[in-house]
Amino acid sequence: MYQGIAASPGIEIGKAFVLKESEIKIDTANIAEEKIVGEIKRLEEGIAKSREQLIKIREKAERELGKDKAQIFDAHIMVLDDPIFMDEIREKIKSERITAENAISQVSKKYVDMFNSMEDEYLKERAADIKDVSERLIKNVLGIPIRSLAELAEEVIVIARDLTPSDTAQMDKEKVKAFATDMGGRTSHTAIMARSLEIPAVVGLGSISNEVSEGDTVIVDGNKGIVLVNPSEDTLRQYNELKLEYQRYKEELKKLKDLPAETKDGKRRVELAANIGTPKDVKGALEHGAEGIGLYRTEFLYMDRETLPDEEEQFRAYKEVAEAMYPRPVIIRTLDIGGDKKLPFLEMPEELNPFLGWRAIRMCLDNPQLFKVQLRAILRASHYGKIKIMYPMISSLSELRKANEILEEAKAELRHEGIPFDENLEVGIMVEIPSAAVTADILAKEVDFFSIGTNDLIQYTLAVDRMNEKIANLYEPFHPAVLRLIKNVIDASHRAGKWTGMCGEMAGDPLAAPILLGMGLDEFSMSATSISQVKKVIRSLTYDQAREIANKALEMENPAEIKEMLNKVLEEIK
Amino acid sequence: MYQGIAASPGIEIGKAFVLKESEIKIDTANIAEEKIVGEIKRLEEGIAKSREQLIKIREKAERELGKDKAQIFDAHIMVLDDPIFMDEIREKIKSERITAENAISQVSKKYVDMFNSMEDEYLKERAADIKDVSERLIKNVLGIPIRSLAELAEEVIVIARDLTPSDTAQMDKEKVKAFATDMGGRTSHTAIMARSLEIPAVVGLGSISNEVSEGDTVIVDGNKGIVLVNPSEDTLRQYNELKLEYQRYKEELKKLKDLPAETKDGKRRVELAANIGTPKDVKGALEHGAEGIGLYRTEFLYMDRETLPDEEEQFRAYKEVAEAMYPRPVIIRTLDIGGDKKLPFLEMPEELNPFLGWRAIRMCLDNPQLFKVQLRAILRASHYGKIKIMYPMISSLSELRKANEILEEAKAELRHEGIPFDENLEVGIMVEIPSAAVTADILAKEVDFFSIGTNDLIQYTLAVDRMNEKIANLYEPFHPAVLRLIKNVIDASHRAGKWTGMCGEMAGDPLAAPILLGMGLDEFSMSATSISQVKKVIRSLTYDQAREIANKALEMENPAEIKEMLNKVLEEIK
Repeated sequence: MYQGIAASPGIEIGKAFVLKESEIKIDTANIAEEKIVGEIKRLEEGIAKSREQLIKIREKAERELGKDKAQIFDAHIMVLDDPIFMDEIREKIKSERITAENAISQVSKKYVDMFNSMEDEYLKERAADIKDVSERLIKNVLGIPIRSLAELAEEVIVIARDLTPSDTAQMDKEKVKAFATDMGGRTSHTAIMARSLEIPAVVGLGSISNEVSEGDTVIVDGNKGIVLVNPSEDTLRQYNELKLEYQRYKEELKKLKDLPAETKDGKRRVELAANIGTPKDVKGALEHGAEGIGLYRTEFLYMDRETLPDEEEQFRAYKEVAEAMYPRPVIIRTLDIGGDKKLPFLEMPEELNPFLGWRAIRMCLDNPQLFKVQLRAILRASHYGKIKIMYPMISSLSELRKANEILEEAKAELRHEGIPFDENLEVGIMVEIPSAAVTADILAKEVDFFSIGTNDLIQYTLAVDRMNEKIANLYEPFHPAVLRLIKNVIDASHRAGKWTGMCGEMAGDPLAAPILLGMGLDEFSMSATSISQVKKVIRSLTYDQAREIANKALEMENPAEIKEMLNKVLEEIK
Repeated sequence: MYQGIAASPGIEIGKAFVLKESEIKIDTANIAEEKIVGEIKRLEEGIAKSREQLIKIREKAERELGKDKAQIFDAHIMVLDDPIFMDEIREKIKSERITAENAISQVSKKYVDMFNSMEDEYLKERAADIKDVSERLIKNVLGIPIRSLAELAEEVIVIARDLTPSDTAQMDKEKVKAFATDMGGRTSHTAIMARSLEIPAVVGLGSISNEVSEGDTVIVDGNKGIVLVNPSEDTLRQYNELKLEYQRYKEELKKLKDLPAETKDGKRRVELAANIGTPKDVKGALEHGAEGIGLYRTEFLYMDRETLPDEEEQFRAYKEVAEAMYPRPVIIRTLDIGGDKKLPFLEMPEELNPFLGWRAIRMCLDNPQLFKVQLRAILRASHYGKIKIMYPMISSLSELRKANEILEEAKAELRHEGIPFDENLEVGIMVEIPSAAVTADILAKEVDFFSIGTNDLIQYTLAVDRMNEKIANLYEPFHPAVLRLIKNVIDASHRAGKWTGMCGEMAGDPLAAPILLGMGLDEFSMSATSISQVKKVIRSLTYDQAREIANKALEMENPAEIKEMLNKVLEEIK
């Protein structure tokens, strides 16, 4: 039995497919002068073969995953086509008289180390690209067949050191039942991919790829983060039952799809919405019963490209979502770039603490032209559905007012141009900075709604960068300060006759649902796949029960105590 | 008239001394083969001369500023003695056949750029060191006399592009009346140096060093951040009067030194304390009438050295302060390292957001052995004065409890060893994380006091890194959220029968004093030079007036409105 990190829920049992190539042996001996020509030829053949493979992978990815996700392979091909990089390898073979694979390995290592030592996330990604391509190139030069998940003869459980985008892009999804990998955390590529495919995954297992042999029977328990290899008859029987039980639970959740998110006594109904990044995500949102889009992250429109998206392009994207969701509401968050998300065409400063830096609304208010283009596009789209606008990272009244001034300018322009938009469009803010939560009463007077962004709010309230492994344990959604701030925001909005939603991860956590429901949260927006779970919790409690739970939690001083109580509640309504 | 940043208060009028060398011209032509020996010789002579100068500067600095501050020149000398660096220059002269100054310039640029591109603050400082030394070396190689502030014939106002530690270390302090520089902000070396010398300074003036000629008459108004060059008779007369007025104000402040910090009606008395970094700062604290040390920053003991300070060394430093201040209280803050402050002998992670990272109590709780050494040293010193312990960066009850557990262990050890310490020593926490401010009622039950660290509290509450120029304008001490949190902390402590102090910069801001007094703050700890100003404000108001001001401020929604009211209050009591 191996304990790892539960990255995607579910239980699967099956035969292991170990995604691992035979070990790469790099010949580091010097070669004779007359062999140089041959090495260069091997290099060129390797490049050609790698390019051919990558073009195929890209085509498949574009077909199945869409243009955005296929772009990563353009980056890979660009590395192969990079004359500086390749010339350096050729030069090295000649001047140092070494093998092609040795030269590739040395040159790529140099660039990978260089890019890795940089703080910039984009450059770090370049390092990953170079590494991925160089490994492929070395394998092709050495004639090592590259194992892929493209053609699987039967249903398997994939065991690997780690899964890269090029692994998953070509994967035969029908045949893959689960993942178990050595590396990774809850936000790694493998984990995200598993959750989006809705298959179980356990990551961070250390060295499972060395322990498991092809064809071994493997149980992946993505609920508990456990992997069992060649289990006994008894264990197998037991897990087959657990698997059935989990499937029944999933079936039951599916039945909830079209039922309202209301308490058992019918006294309180809330809205369960989905967070999306692109128009393509709308399908999944509707399939999971989302009653709206609580957070449409527009930054994906701006990222991974060389120029700003113009008004027309943005308008089309927003309109597509508004129409597809109609008559359900769609909350569009204005550009939340900066922090860890950079734009290549916009000069962004190197910051010592990017999370406390020039990001989101701060950047937009300093670039009103860029901001207004987006606001015009949103306004125009609002004519085609039920759109609401939401500003991120508002810390003070004056920022809200400045943003609204630009919005009013955009509206005046459209009126003047005779372009229709929803004159009653609601405007709200993300509450994700402690100052906004503390002064929610002041802000409530000038907004139509709040949406609590718990990821950042918790991060700032506790002064903890949750991506920082050294202190990730201090990141605590159930800290009394966090609960009090949430309560304060909800109460302030209600006193002003407004409503409050939540679009951080906490909104999709079944454990938090009883408290949030009891505190009076009006809308929960989450990854679509979490909707039924949260709905189940809400439908299992009376409103009085939820309020009592919330009040109890607010009196407790210790997160552990609060979570213990909530776990008991979930156990009871299971 | 030039507008810059007011970096140190006061008004001075005098003759300009422009600290600028004649332009450096680097000969980039290639040299003949036979000239190489001569260039190497020029380089060696330049190195020798630079070393000689630096040794002298270091000696003077050690004599006048103390060993700590002289250490920077050891770093400079180390650069000169660095064989890799110097060999690279020699090599370049030979292989590329270029002049010595050209080689120095190229090699130093390479290293400066490299170190500058790194996030690590220590490495960035290395870049500054290399730049400073290389400039000196180039000047010496070229035979350009280096202007220094060491021997001044008369009293002057120093005009410069920027002042480096090597400029100010050799400065003839008796003769320098004020600074005006092109570069810098309120926390730059020039600004800090001016405030510690108590002379006026205006920084960030852009290009004043090009505009002013040696001997020009210059007025430096450090209160308003204005510099006037060759003013008219009228202006001169007017400024002479302002200067006298300011001097009278300063004299008046001096008279307050031994008077209590109590309201005009005698109804409320508070404690005004000083923030210090080393035992040497105690003298200044007492001279300015500090009634205690509200913050003894112990990290200076740990920084700029190769090994950890042991218990004995720490004990001596703490004891020295405790004895010198006795019977006044001394609050020792336990190690607040991490964030932007690194220790060379402790492996610190590279963090994307160091201010939201592994710092202060977080690092200490993960290194209980290191922490306990400090706690033992503080406890032992408590026998010799009135010491209180304060933990930084507490975000939750469980951290406080863990820290106290280690403290109890240290106490138990000392009891067992028969070493005396103050059994009634008070233990408090810094309130500088929003979660601590929001849950002050919970924490108040288990501490003896709070001290509000406004610098960090504001930073986290508003999600603004105040060192980040792009958003520094969002850093707002008078944000309603900040005032509410401060009020909440003070009230929570009083309800639990405890007291609250403040040791951030806000405590030393005369503008904030009426509100803080009115909110019931018990202790104000600040840089010693600010004490009389704050005392003057407190002694000019009745307690009812202060309370009314605080209540009004808490009802206002806009920082601008609050500051306008406070400026009126200060104007009235002037």
